Amino acid sequence: MNERLDKLRQKMKDEGIDVYYFNTTDNHMSEYVAEYFKTIRYFSGFTGSLASMLVSANDAHIFVDGRYHIQADKQCLVNDVNVVKLGSKGALSVEDFIKTHYADKTIGLDGKRASISFVNGIDNKIISKDIYSSIISDRSPLSKSMLFKLEDEYTGKSRKEKLDELKYILGGKSHVINNLESIAYLLNLRGDDILYTPVFYAYMVIDNDDVYLFIDKERLSPEILDELYADGVIIRDYDTYYDFLKKIKNRTIILDDNKVNYESKLALKKNKLIYTSSPVDLMKSVKNETEISMSKKAHEYDGVCMVRFIKWLKEIDKKTISEKDAADYLDNLRKSYKAFDLSFSSIVAYNQNAAQMHYSPSRENEVMLDNSGILLVDSGGQYKEGTTDITRTIALGEVSDQLKKHFTIVLKSMLNLQSVTFMKGLSGNQLDILARKDIWEQGIDYRCGTGHGVGHVLSVHENPPNIRYMSTASKSEAEPLRIGQIVSDEPGIYLEDEYGIRCENLLLVKEAISNSWGEFLCFEPITLCPFDLDLIDVKYLDQKSVDLLNVYHKMVFDKLSPYLNEEETEFLRQQTRNI
Amino acid sequence: MNERLDKLRQKMKDEGIDVYYFNTTDNHMSEYVAEYFKTIRYFSGFTGSLASMLVSANDAHIFVDGRYHIQADKQCLVNDVNVVKLGSKGALSVEDFIKTHYADKTIGLDGKRASISFVNGIDNKIISKDIYSSIISDRSPLSKSMLFKLEDEYTGKSRKEKLDELKYILGGKSHVINNLESIAYLLNLRGDDILYTPVFYAYMVIDNDDVYLFIDKERLSPEILDELYADGVIIRDYDTYYDFLKKIKNRTIILDDNKVNYESKLALKKNKLIYTSSPVDLMKSVKNETEISMSKKAHEYDGVCMVRFIKWLKEIDKKTISEKDAADYLDNLRKSYKAFDLSFSSIVAYNQNAAQMHYSPSRENEVMLDNSGILLVDSGGQYKEGTTDITRTIALGEVSDQLKKHFTIVLKSMLNLQSVTFMKGLSGNQLDILARKDIWEQGIDYRCGTGHGVGHVLSVHENPPNIRYMSTASKSEAEPLRIGQIVSDEPGIYLEDEYGIRCENLLLVKEAISNSWGEFLCFEPITLCPFDLDLIDVKYLDQKSVDLLNVYHKMVFDKLSPYLNEEETEFLRQQTRNI
Repeated sequence: MNERLDKLRQKMKDEGIDVYYFNTTDNHMSEYVAEYFKTIRYFSGFTGSLASMLVSANDAHIFVDGRYHIQADKQCLVNDVNVVKLGSKGALSVEDFIKTHYADKTIGLDGKRASISFVNGIDNKIISKDIYSSIISDRSPLSKSMLFKLEDEYTGKSRKEKLDELKYILGGKSHVINNLESIAYLLNLRGDDILYTPVFYAYMVIDNDDVYLFIDKERLSPEILDELYADGVIIRDYDTYYDFLKKIKNRTIILDDNKVNYESKLALKKNKLIYTSSPVDLMKSVKNETEISMSKKAHEYDGVCMVRFIKWLKEIDKKTISEKDAADYLDNLRKSYKAFDLSFSSIVAYNQNAAQMHYSPSRENEVMLDNSGILLVDSGGQYKEGTTDITRTIALGEVSDQLKKHFTIVLKSMLNLQSVTFMKGLSGNQLDILARKDIWEQGIDYRCGTGHGVGHVLSVHENPPNIRYMSTASKSEAEPLRIGQIVSDEPGIYLEDEYGIRCENLLLVKEAISNSWGEFLCFEPITLCPFDLDLIDVKYLDQKSVDLLNVYHKMVFDKLSPYLNEEETEFLRQQTRNI
Repeated sequence: MNERLDKLRQKMKDEGIDVYYFNTTDNHMSEYVAEYFKTIRYFSGFTGSLASMLVSANDAHIFVDGRYHIQADKQCLVNDVNVVKLGSKGALSVEDFIKTHYADKTIGLDGKRASISFVNGIDNKIISKDIYSSIISDRSPLSKSMLFKLEDEYTGKSRKEKLDELKYILGGKSHVINNLESIAYLLNLRGDDILYTPVFYAYMVIDNDDVYLFIDKERLSPEILDELYADGVIIRDYDTYYDFLKKIKNRTIILDDNKVNYESKLALKKNKLIYTSSPVDLMKSVKNETEISMSKKAHEYDGVCMVRFIKWLKEIDKKTISEKDAADYLDNLRKSYKAFDLSFSSIVAYNQNAAQMHYSPSRENEVMLDNSGILLVDSGGQYKEGTTDITRTIALGEVSDQLKKHFTIVLKSMLNLQSVTFMKGLSGNQLDILARKDIWEQGIDYRCGTGHGVGHVLSVHENPPNIRYMSTASKSEAEPLRIGQIVSDEPGIYLEDEYGIRCENLLLVKEAISNSWGEFLCFEPITLCPFDLDLIDVKYLDQKSVDLLNVYHKMVFDKLSPYLNEEETEFLRQQTRNI
């Protein structure tokens, strides 16, 4: 690993770069990326999904959030990469770190893999150049597989309708899209380029009301090509995107400086750029009636798998299985039933392992279970009907009173948010406190947001909406919640070296009531799976929460039992009994 | 009245002004102003506290918010002044009205009485000239009374310390202050220029580390003059302020474009102006230990008056008194005890009158009480120790079950906010939902903020802090709450033609606990007065709220009973009994 950094430092020297910047994104500012783009892992050893890194001639720093504080220490320190723990006292953000330590240094970065807003936020001299690709050996190739179509019966809106709607909103202005989910959404096409997120690498430009798609043409079937042609989509090769941009002149172009890469900005120099979020963000975030009813169907399928998994887990001798065995069992349940993929790598974490929020079970460090303690299971599936994301924390046997107390408080916190009625216009950062206040009352916090939006047969993390309190609220976090959005509700308690607890339902934003006071919204839980009654200590629940849980459990039973055999039904009846 | 407008129109013609703009503020952008500045009343007949007006050659428009829609119709239409009802469908703001109807007209206004940000928001040609004063006959003079000193034992920080702290923050930059509360705070001086807010008319400029105070010198006693001299405050005549500004050149000057008048900007042309909130806003908002302990003392005095008032009200035959009688009784209790003034005009509103949030009882439209229904009493005092603001809703006899339900929900809502533990960094607009969610659950909202900051022997409305959810959150509303701030907590339910309910405590922001998760804050209620147990239906309270109320009532009894005679003590014991 040190050798890799040495090679990089040599290149930096050759190019006159003092500090080189890496992040975990791709050319499209994606949260999850193809293997091809996992360069931070190559140079630091860090395997988490989100980090930034600064390499100077003498040292290297990786910047990770609360989810990865412990993991980064383990993976990076051995490679002489210092860990900056974002959110800890005194920890500087990458930008502030540059200002403080590298104020007059020349910063190098790959402009295709840094957002416009990130680069605009740095005052240093910037050299935009990929100096690392030539160092990486045995690099995983990008996917070459064929794209597939999501039929209108799943999307509720045809490609033509979506493109027409977008053009109407743009009103003649041009628009540049790097975001892969937006492109997949608009085209009703899906791919397998990124693990778990069914998107494909492509750029899109709308100019003079013409729609240009930059993609590897070989991956489109003749049928899809015909359809695209009929819908007015002009196909260009993926690699010709930047040259195409360079030819655009004197146009007013809408682009999101957080979701379009810096290299695009450089190529669009001769135009008037308006930085604002893409209209597609809101289009895809607000689910139409077909997407909603399909998503509910997906959650029924997913709930069936979860109930089967919990039954298996409750009945088996836990001494005979590992975390990874449990994860494999669950993954197989989903894949052999209705899911075409998982929506992310299942987190199956035993006791203290769950204190790492994004723990991944592995064969290399296999952890056996036991007939005591708790297992945190955070997982989801990709269905043609929709995308799921669910966390349940499950008792494997005896647990301590403190753990029961904490589980009950987490469950109550989740129900607090799920059951709120709120005035239209409120944003997630104004609702977040509902899921936290009972936990804060214990002098505990969880170092992540409470909820994220969920895409429709797309990324399990979609933004907007967002439910988080962090005072560095981005504009999107102050965006009002809208009817038809789907957002997760997942408070937790994580005690290092002890345990991690999380309860997560997905919620649909709905209208509650409209009267002379205005329009009130509420949430409908669409996740269908019992919460483990073995972990509840009722003395920490108020009557309202008890009622909410009973009503929720009754709904779970009613919706899932038609899919289950007699034995499974009996199990579910037990698991969803009134308390 | 028409004659007055005719005279004004003649002046407008002479000056080449097409449209003249009026508002209800003074030279200092104050919310409440001296009689002298009530020019809108002179030209339109409107007596409310907030309005704007546009007079053109042919017509006149007054712009008022929801509180004043009916009142303005009554007072202004007879004077040929049209009423624009802000908040109603299609009603344009003054700015939009100018854009729509007077796009290429020349606008006249008194630049001393319009903020920089207001004038900057208008694209028209502006003539800044007071053309109205010479028309007004029998104008009330400004106060000439002597200022009084607030001793260090009340302020906890000397004038010298405050000015040194301000200069340190400014770091050599200049600073222009128009805001009267800021000047009174910095100088530890108070006056009587504005009803209920103990400030005095003055400007302040800090330039080259010198402090200039522009004021009517005659109002300063020789002793105060000596002290000011010793503390390095240079006295100049109030009227020389603009000429002084014109002599400043090539300086960097900090000023708040919302709180400094446009004429100041014109006078400072030769300087670099930085528009930002004054550092004094935060200095005076964060109360020091002396201010806190003194404020608590003020609330003990105030609580004593409130308990005596409630005892009197509960015992008297309500048929024999009017709202105004009750208000006078309460006002006398305060003034004859420890208060040197009220902090605002007492709101004493019976049943449906309380549905108007800013109702004022009067002799002209005297409303008699009865031995049934409820009385909403929102009032406060100015003490040398601090400023109070309290609302209690009191049963005068039988009340309906629905009213009890609504009162109980309002009380629970107030307790919900009062009892929260929250992470440092949260702003009022993230906490607001705690005071609203139980009310929203009923499909009801209240059309005002939940809480406002309270000054120390200053304005009862101080900003920051603020607790409100409105999506048009100003920057100050997104400001984190800080330890030492005092903020009101006053949810309510207002049903037109039925009743209005409000419960209000003032809360002190305190540290709760600091641990590895971070710094948690909480509130301490400093208002001391029982809530009417006759209005509570316990079935709408959870156990937590019951416990909170009992603990609060015990504190009220413990802190107030030492001040009370035997009979009053017995009454308070009854009123604060455990439920």
